[in-house]
Amino acid sequence: MADTTDTTAGGVAGDDTRPISGRTGGKASGKASGGKRAGKNAAATAARSGSTGPGGPSKGRTRPDKSTGGPAKDAPATTGGGAGSSRTAGEPEAATATPGAPVDGVSRRRLLGTAGAAGAAALIVGGVAGATGAEAVRGKPTPLTDVGSGVVPFHGTHQSGILQPAQAHGHLVAFDLTGGTDRKGAAALMRRWSAAAAELMAGRPPQGDDSGVALDAGPSSLTVTFGFGRTFFDRVGLTDRRPDALEPLPAFTADVIDGKRSNGDLWVQIGADDALVAFHALRLLQKEAAGAARVRWQMNGFNRTPGATAQPMTGRNLMGQIDGTNNPKPSSADFAQKIFVPDGQQGPESWMAGGSYAVVRRIRMLLDSWDNLSLDRQERVIGRRKSDGAPLSGGTETTRVDLDKMGPDGALAIPGDAHIRVAAPANNRGAAMLRRAFSYHDGFLDDGAPDAGLLFIAWQADPLKGFVPVQRKLDRGDGLSRFLRHEASALFAVPGGCDEGGYVGQHLLEG
Amino acid sequence: MADTTDTTAGGVAGDDTRPISGRTGGKASGKASGGKRAGKNAAATAARSGSTGPGGPSKGRTRPDKSTGGPAKDAPATTGGGAGSSRTAGEPEAATATPGAPVDGVSRRRLLGTAGAAGAAALIVGGVAGATGAEAVRGKPTPLTDVGSGVVPFHGTHQSGILQPAQAHGHLVAFDLTGGTDRKGAAALMRRWSAAAAELMAGRPPQGDDSGVALDAGPSSLTVTFGFGRTFFDRVGLTDRRPDALEPLPAFTADVIDGKRSNGDLWVQIGADDALVAFHALRLLQKEAAGAARVRWQMNGFNRTPGATAQPMTGRNLMGQIDGTNNPKPSSADFAQKIFVPDGQQGPESWMAGGSYAVVRRIRMLLDSWDNLSLDRQERVIGRRKSDGAPLSGGTETTRVDLDKMGPDGALAIPGDAHIRVAAPANNRGAAMLRRAFSYHDGFLDDGAPDAGLLFIAWQADPLKGFVPVQRKLDRGDGLSRFLRHEASALFAVPGGCDEGGYVGQHLLEG
Repeated sequence: MADTTDTTAGGVAGDDTRPISGRTGGKASGKASGGKRAGKNAAATAARSGSTGPGGPSKGRTRPDKSTGGPAKDAPATTGGGAGSSRTAGEPEAATATPGAPVDGVSRRRLLGTAGAAGAAALIVGGVAGATGAEAVRGKPTPLTDVGSGVVPFHGTHQSGILQPAQAHGHLVAFDLTGGTDRKGAAALMRRWSAAAAELMAGRPPQGDDSGVALDAGPSSLTVTFGFGRTFFDRVGLTDRRPDALEPLPAFTADVIDGKRSNGDLWVQIGADDALVAFHALRLLQKEAAGAARVRWQMNGFNRTPGATAQPMTGRNLMGQIDGTNNPKPSSADFAQKIFVPDGQQGPESWMAGGSYAVVRRIRMLLDSWDNLSLDRQERVIGRRKSDGAPLSGGTETTRVDLDKMGPDGALAIPGDAHIRVAAPANNRGAAMLRRAFSYHDGFLDDGAPDAGLLFIAWQADPLKGFVPVQRKLDRGDGLSRFLRHEASALFAVPGGCDEGGYVGQHLLEG
Repeated sequence: MADTTDTTAGGVAGDDTRPISGRTGGKASGKASGGKRAGKNAAATAARSGSTGPGGPSKGRTRPDKSTGGPAKDAPATTGGGAGSSRTAGEPEAATATPGAPVDGVSRRRLLGTAGAAGAAALIVGGVAGATGAEAVRGKPTPLTDVGSGVVPFHGTHQSGILQPAQAHGHLVAFDLTGGTDRKGAAALMRRWSAAAAELMAGRPPQGDDSGVALDAGPSSLTVTFGFGRTFFDRVGLTDRRPDALEPLPAFTADVIDGKRSNGDLWVQIGADDALVAFHALRLLQKEAAGAARVRWQMNGFNRTPGATAQPMTGRNLMGQIDGTNNPKPSSADFAQKIFVPDGQQGPESWMAGGSYAVVRRIRMLLDSWDNLSLDRQERVIGRRKSDGAPLSGGTETTRVDLDKMGPDGALAIPGDAHIRVAAPANNRGAAMLRRAFSYHDGFLDDGAPDAGLLFIAWQADPLKGFVPVQRKLDRGDGLSRFLRHEASALFAVPGGCDEGGYVGQHLLEG
């Protein structure tokens, strides 16, 4: 599914109705096949540009061919030169948006995941990162098909994995620093991780990686996102620069929190549309951490596979509900203000410019209880029809919710404790967060209930103005809360992105 | 990955080199886009045929629309009428094969997963199962994109999930019958399961299912396969009809078997290219079992996402090795004889005609140890190059392995303990099995090692002529065994397929 919605715990309805994600929205401006062609043309241009760009051949890195027997081979099919996005524009106006025009510091096309976005991304990668374009031209550019060819740039104002549609496979992993790791060691780790992530996201195995797990596949829209937990700052002697926003989240009545699967010094979010590409990134980053940090907890999630529906649609969660309709939209005036920490702040938290705070909750769905409800009752708990996501006040999925609408029986069309009513920004002083979740399923519990639900990730400039007030409200009055258990919880400061040559967290660790 | 190979534990090299799977083989006969068009044309034909076929409108089932608010809606986009396979032909000769010509009782095109296969499948489904074609004509057939539109027929000589390429998502689940379930109760369960599987695989929610989890998506090449474990026969009073082939597997030195995750009265294998479609099937079958059987163990696996590579290729496992090259080929004369129980046998095991035996092993890969080997050493352990899967005796992935070839240093090109040498049929009296695996990754163990490896599934007409002798040999002499731990094990009798109106296992339970 493209991103989370008002239909899940902690969800919050945005005020307008167009989805942010390239995978959401029934009014896509074109079919995927058309998008493919556009993407490929853009990719060819990108490949050419790359060969003469600032990071062209002179910077091209030669990877040693260690294989025995047979001649040295050209770069595998994972070079980033091939492109063509699997995503179709989700917003009607995407077709008329100026290509590459910046919106809140991020390319609009990139942000929307439109058909041409991968091409634009490849251009950036080819120009900045060096080897990709050169390799693509030296050999023939390897055409990758839809899913594999999606490329998201690592470098930029914001980290990746926030604005892009959630991928088909996700790994969340928290690390704790080992005893001997100080500020300098943490900086070295973040530098290694950033370098590896940039290579992986461009579809290249990082230097020294001959594991081969992701070979043949394209980058498959891989994103890697890094965050710092509250305890990180104590461990590296930077307590005085810890943001107030990292104060522990309050307890909620639906919480049954397992501390061992919560919090952590460091957090990495990995997403990709191919399972082996995602696993490869997870494993490689774990190996890069050896000696400096060890895994504290790790969770696997999933969303719908690109192409499983006839056209890009908002995804569904494991309760069967369409999930992702009312996320805040980058087109709204206050989007950046609500999601990202602004530039230009002074003081100890200035290093968070361009960053965001991620609230991570493992939310188990009590599916046996939920499935025992009639469809009618389920829909009244949510406030939307299951079949198509339309609000019970009428219309279609994207129709504005009418909280005052009365049904033919004289009662509110959207019941008083319906999830979308309790979560509505109008009822939460405009509080908003960008939800971008993965479903999870880890088998069955001893009582036969599925150990399944949502790896809920909410992004906001300030958790006290996003997740916390909304969850407080849901905790008291939401009819959906009875069917959910929050089993793990964490909060991370996710710094802004870095430029080439830099690394994520540099402004903190060297500031 | 398409199916398992000689590069994994218990693997066995077939004698020729062409892959069975539509996803394997670099010599695909056409690009995916071409295949798509062919599939769509075939689907349109199928839809028309379905409306007048033997199972046409008169058998069309009306699903109640329980949704509140809004008019009753047409069938969701999951009707099986739309088609167009995401798979491209893997065998060069597929392009010239007679469409629909039977090979060993199964349509060759269906078996190969060729571009036109989904169309042919839709034709079968439309003609036999009834409602699909009629619905597709009554409304407009909903075009589904590549991944979603893959349809595999439930009914046939063999069960599904054996000959089709392994999907991107897999669930393995074993059930134990509850105390009160006798032969009659087991028969009722198998009838419910078969009916549900037929609907799910056609992309329709079974009657009474309003969970909605798979709505919007197409069937996404869903397959559901049922098997009986050794203990099943005692529970239902049919011990005298238990096949000798279900004798417990011998112990091997690499075994560290967890009994709680092994064996079981009943087994269900679910595969689909979309995670929500697969989860939906798993959950629905669990609910259908309520009162009659409960989950004993359950495992989740994955393979590469369709479209992640530039063209269909043999997949890779989590050791990074290309995995699936040398499976036995349906084009070989003895394929059916080695994989399926023949028709026409007399005696207590006659109910297994058209069936096969599945050996299921959860094989953890000791990735920390493996990754510490140099690439050169890894390749000598396997006997193939990691980059492209070519045997160390030379050539490309599909070049016949030359076990006698000497290297320039005067030593065997393929070392004496290389996996592909020890597993070669020539060294195992021609023993063969069809391997069709999923990778798995369930997080990290306390020591930081990935809990990851292979859900190995091997199919054969007789385990004593397939898995057992090969694994005995590997257990003694295979260099790869040092990097593997078999942590769970099971053996199931998988009956032949059923016709419409029947159910899997009927010949046993009513015979």
